[in-house]
Amino acid sequence: MTSPIRRAPRSFCPIATTLEFVGDRWTLVIIRDLLNGKRRFSEFLGSPERITTNILTGRLADMERDGLIEKTAYQTRPLRHEYRLTARGAALLPVLQEMCLWANRFWPQTWRPPESFMERRID
Amino acid sequence: MTSPIRRAPRSFCPIATTLEFVGDRWTLVIIRDLLNGKRRFSEFLGSPERITTNILTGRLADMERDGLIEKTAYQTRPLRHEYRLTARGAALLPVLQEMCLWANRFWPQTWRPPESFMERRID
Repeated sequence: MTSPIRRAPRSFCPIATTLEFVGDRWTLVIIRDLLNGKRRFSEFLGSPERITTNILTGRLADMERDGLIEKTAYQTRPLRHEYRLTARGAALLPVLQEMCLWANRFWPQTWRPPESFMERRID
Repeated sequence: MTSPIRRAPRSFCPIATTLEFVGDRWTLVIIRDLLNGKRRFSEFLGSPERITTNILTGRLADMERDGLIEKTAYQTRPLRHEYRLTARGAALLPVLQEMCLWANRFWPQTWRPPESFMERRID
């Protein structure tokens, strides 16, 4: 799931560049969970989208390599890590907020996010 | 490239739902081109990201099935189509604008979009 060296960028278009980091079905779902306070592997696995262990492992490694998240050990024996957003990862919040507005407008069955999420601002 | 029937949604989370439509490396690049006035297959192929014919064919079919774009014939013999954004597709503009702000902030080598793009508002 993880490529140790990222491909050469397709262009310096800011949209294409952003998609090199988050242009897949899962990365922004994990960022959503982190913004909502989840920190641990088992917490991400428990989200309603039912990400698989393999995909989650790969995405977390990619996101760490890309500087979107940081990993720290919270337990040894057995070793367990928790994950936190970096400033770069947390700054994706407005992208997520606009995705919420789009989905809520065109797919009325989608959940309305809490106001606290929609009103949050990045630093 | 195209699945005639879309998978069942992973959840009714508006972020996960949006990613069912645009959670890949190419769809939002094509939407960018359409917002910038491109209409024809050869114009999308000419963009700096060098999408391949196969991927472009698949993405356009997916986007039409999902109601993000509409296809009309502009020529017969040989038959040629042009593509336009629907209201649903055009309403992804704010997602693209936020991706531009994010990339410009964290990846200084990325292009600055024209002000006309960043100041555009959806209906």
